[in-house]
Amino acid sequence: MTTNATAFQPLLDSIAEEAPVYYGQGKVNSSIPGLARVDPKQFGIAIATLDGGVATAGAAKVPFSIQSVSKVFSLCLALDYMGEDLWTRVGRNPSGQRFNSLTRIEQEQGRPMNPFVNPGALVVADCLVERAATPIHTLIGFLRKLAHSQRVGCDYDVAKSELSTAFRNYAAASLLKEYGNLHGDPRAVVGAYTHFCAASMTCVELAKAALPFANDGKDPKTGRQVLPPGRARRVNSLMLTCGLYDAAGDFAYRVGLPAKSGVGGGIMAIVPNRMAIAVWSPELDPLGNSVAGFAALERLTRDGDLSVF
Amino acid sequence: MTTNATAFQPLLDSIAEEAPVYYGQGKVNSSIPGLARVDPKQFGIAIATLDGGVATAGAAKVPFSIQSVSKVFSLCLALDYMGEDLWTRVGRNPSGQRFNSLTRIEQEQGRPMNPFVNPGALVVADCLVERAATPIHTLIGFLRKLAHSQRVGCDYDVAKSELSTAFRNYAAASLLKEYGNLHGDPRAVVGAYTHFCAASMTCVELAKAALPFANDGKDPKTGRQVLPPGRARRVNSLMLTCGLYDAAGDFAYRVGLPAKSGVGGGIMAIVPNRMAIAVWSPELDPLGNSVAGFAALERLTRDGDLSVF
Amino acid sequence: MTTNATAFQPLLDSIAEEAPVYYGQGKVNSSIPGLARVDPKQFGIAIATLDGGVATAGAAKVPFSIQSVSKVFSLCLALDYMGEDLWTRVGRNPSGQRFNSLTRIEQEQGRPMNPFVNPGALVVADCLVERAATPIHTLIGFLRKLAHSQRVGCDYDVAKSELSTAFRNYAAASLLKEYGNLHGDPRAVVGAYTHFCAASMTCVELAKAALPFANDGKDPKTGRQVLPPGRARRVNSLMLTCGLYDAAGDFAYRVGLPAKSGVGGGIMAIVPNRMAIAVWSPELDPLGNSVAGFAALERLTRDGDLSVF
Amino acid sequence: MTTNATAFQPLLDSIAEEAPVYYGQGKVNSSIPGLARVDPKQFGIAIATLDGGVATAGAAKVPFSIQSVSKVFSLCLALDYMGEDLWTRVGRNPSGQRFNSLTRIEQEQGRPMNPFVNPGALVVADCLVERAATPIHTLIGFLRKLAHSQRVGCDYDVAKSELSTAFRNYAAASLLKEYGNLHGDPRAVVGAYTHFCAASMTCVELAKAALPFANDGKDPKTGRQVLPPGRARRVNSLMLTCGLYDAAGDFAYRVGLPAKSGVGGGIMAIVPNRMAIAVWSPELDPLGNSVAGFAALERLTRDGDLSVF
Repeated sequence: MTTNATAFQPLLDSIAEEAPVYYGQGKVNSSIPGLARVDPKQFGIAIATLDGGVATAGAAKVPFSIQSVSKVFSLCLALDYMGEDLWTRVGRNPSGQRFNSLTRIEQEQGRPMNPFVNPGALVVADCLVERAATPIHTLIGFLRKLAHSQRVGCDYDVAKSELSTAFRNYAAASLLKEYGNLHGDPRAVVGAYTHFCAASMTCVELAKAALPFANDGKDPKTGRQVLPPGRARRVNSLMLTCGLYDAAGDFAYRVGLPAKSGVGGGIMAIVPNRMAIAVWSPELDPLGNSVAGFAALERLTRDGDLSVF
Repeated sequence: MTTNATAFQPLLDSIAEEAPVYYGQGKVNSSIPGLARVDPKQFGIAIATLDGGVATAGAAKVPFSIQSVSKVFSLCLALDYMGEDLWTRVGRNPSGQRFNSLTRIEQEQGRPMNPFVNPGALVVADCLVERAATPIHTLIGFLRKLAHSQRVGCDYDVAKSELSTAFRNYAAASLLKEYGNLHGDPRAVVGAYTHFCAASMTCVELAKAALPFANDGKDPKTGRQVLPPGRARRVNSLMLTCGLYDAAGDFAYRVGLPAKSGVGGGIMAIVPNRMAIAVWSPELDPLGNSVAGFAALERLTRDGDLSVF
Repeated sequence: MTTNATAFQPLLDSIAEEAPVYYGQGKVNSSIPGLARVDPKQFGIAIATLDGGVATAGAAKVPFSIQSVSKVFSLCLALDYMGEDLWTRVGRNPSGQRFNSLTRIEQEQGRPMNPFVNPGALVVADCLVERAATPIHTLIGFLRKLAHSQRVGCDYDVAKSELSTAFRNYAAASLLKEYGNLHGDPRAVVGAYTHFCAASMTCVELAKAALPFANDGKDPKTGRQVLPPGRARRVNSLMLTCGLYDAAGDFAYRVGLPAKSGVGGGIMAIVPNRMAIAVWSPELDPLGNSVAGFAALERLTRDGDLSVF
Repeated sequence: MTTNATAFQPLLDSIAEEAPVYYGQGKVNSSIPGLARVDPKQFGIAIATLDGGVATAGAAKVPFSIQSVSKVFSLCLALDYMGEDLWTRVGRNPSGQRFNSLTRIEQEQGRPMNPFVNPGALVVADCLVERAATPIHTLIGFLRKLAHSQRVGCDYDVAKSELSTAFRNYAAASLLKEYGNLHGDPRAVVGAYTHFCAASMTCVELAKAALPFANDGKDPKTGRQVLPPGRARRVNSLMLTCGLYDAAGDFAYRVGLPAKSGVGGGIMAIVPNRMAIAVWSPELDPLGNSVAGFAALERLTRDGDLSVF
């Protein structure tokens, strides 16, 4: 029952054609200067199947800032370094609050609810800062290996502009430090975290990089186990329960796939044992998820019968 | 790729044998007088497969109080009555807080986070109170039909004892009424809700009743669509993101199945397109989930390779 | 340095004359049907001095519903019954949250922040329900004695209408019961509390009833110690820190007197060792305090040099 | 009715004699390295009366770190600069939460509840950083003028050690910056704030510096109006409602005076129109107030009949 990418081409084309319907319904992230410059009326989608096939539609080869999608990859690196010990410092449950809430840090006495809220991703970044010589190079190297693309890189302009207004993340990092759950300097950790978020990828690259998550950690192209057996499934579960900020339940209801979104407008989704999907469109709904991207995934899973449920 | 129940017999036997290891690690629910009398050192498990097969181990035919597991079934009835309009009154996202928190009702201005926290289940019960002549009979009738068992009933002693101390639920219902999100009298709604929770079923009955959720709403025995197409998958998604109280993320991480637990010690889990599982053991962890039940499901999905991820 | 009421007559007249300036700036309480019927464009003020003098202006002899002002008097009765033991059940600090918040009850594990938020007043009412044969008669009797007026009574129509929509108070009482901090039945306690709030008094009566609080507990007319020595000063302190809901700090800043307000539009204020003041005007600001009453007290303390600071 | 300091000498002596009873009941602040070194078993008290008299007992001439007591004086300077406009940036109501809570900043969307919680004092410090060339010199100069003592200074060792662990204050300042309620750099503002807290004074100096607050802003020694008329009374009201962290209501109940405490163990209290009091003893109760200092003030106001109520 191999899934063939080509078979999905007509559906992808139809979805891309429909995308402009959603233009104007959301807003490009304006809190990050580097993102505010992006043309909002863009849409791209790519799927990568286990057999090595790729199908795309729209602007699937335009690089965008993956932002919080990077949290999945930094988490995997931190788990490489620390194994399950990581969970002494970060929880694994949905937070039920805004992804950047400091209230929640106080309620949980410094232990973030999960690795995909900002405070959790800061703790993850702290693990990398502590152990990797140059964390951003480590992350970019990991993304390049997974995506089989040397083009993947960090957009230093985006990172720089984001750092100039990263007050909430500085606040979160300082508060985590207060609770003893940050080993590095708060500014250094926010710096690394912000550079991770500034990783720049195309839909095609992101779908390929996500493929091992659909294949129990094995890169189908090389046959190499790039994530230990079991880890991909567990990370998928975290994406499903915590991957779309406050909308995780809603997304699971409407789409039914593990996924991670970013305020750059990208969403990466996993169809276990079948394929990986990357979609991108910059306009965001009030919860920070791509409007056209969310709609595209809803239609793709419905018409393509891809829900895990 | 039909799943055969018999093939799982050795694994179920081994799991049931291991269950006593967990005895003493949790506590029987003491806040509900009727439950406190149950012998804590019991364990039962049953699976029901799409082909009509059933396999069991341990006390799989001992009736227990399904408690919050009933929320899945009352939700389906409310959706029958109201369709997607229900979601104007209840959300679909994990709450990140205790299942009986009133704080959350205030934060959300009277709209409960999801139908599986108590306030959400009270709104669901309100829909049934408003439209069903005798809501508890409607629910029990639904359970009997799904379980193909006339033995299923309401334990009125449990309901009565629970009502005598249901102050927090009265508080929640009154607060929902204040916000205009309860049409009936708070006492009547709490009464109906409490009787739903007092439904008494065995693991075998519960596994059978859950089977349509693994079969896109169709009862495999009769071939009848007992839930509209699509609804089972969506309710499964809600179970996965919101079904295990505060431990939903943790459960997804360790077990990887849509499931709903109850403070009677029961957990119902769905393996889409393959089978339904019911497990029961009365001792609960601090978050209200069965200790031995959780462990049993973790082993079953790992050794049986059942995770949706 | 006796304060003479007559000397304040010109200032009171001027204040009453200015009152209509504030008409239309606030809203009559609409959540209590019995209060919504009151003509909003009314203003009355009365002061009572230790020498027995009284000065008034405006509608000082029109009875109004004292609502939360009653919490001061029920508190005194509860302290009579229980002494300082009362403070094991209720705190003495400002809550920093809406007076009817249930969130706060959960945060404090069932111990209300102070006796002037609704949950605290419900615990106070519970003490009276437990010990007084007919709590409302006990309270009215106390008010009549302090006010030297048999006219003071309970407006049963207001109480009845208030009870029909008292869902938030039922919720609070049920939640307190859940935490073990309510001995009586939640409905009985809310019933008593609501009748206390429905006490009906004029400004003249209220100013006289408040006079012992300015005189260390002694009724200046009879010379009798109606409150134990020290208690009046302590209750005054509670009024100052917790008496005006969320606006206590603001009121202290602008007025500088211990005071208690009610959603009927009344405010009672104490000038220690000098006089008591009652003011009434039904229109409320967003925090529930009388707009014209607040302004009147601000001018009276400024021009009359009455601040305790 | 002038109050004479000498008349209070026997009472002060008795209070100082009693102080060792409280030794061991509290703990010296350990979160600030520079304070942890102080000998905990010390007690001093001083009163300054309007006629220029001073009475002392115990270690009244030992300098200590005034910490949050400094917030009263920095507030006065900010009001000098900004007048009542300051209140657009800071509230005037008790917070009902820990003085260093970030939760509250989020709830209030960046407007601190009052100038005596840390976030409020950071906004106050920001005003000084924006307008004073060297804010710490401005504050120390103000304290020297009020205390008539050139000995008053900043303990730079304490400030330095405090800054090395001031993560929570950095977090608060960053969060305020995020909300647009901090004009300066968060690190600079925390730096200034921390130096204000490190002001070092004796009880005698602090009582003298506080005296104008008991005299409607006039320095009784020079006859000069060091605070505009009315401001002292209003700042006193803020001290009473917000000056003792979470214990403001409790302190008002037991002591009945406007006061401000600091984690260095100092408390400054005002008896309007009569005197100012400074007391110091390093051991703190769980809410951060000096145990022996609180008890001393309770006895002094009771036996000296000083309560404003």
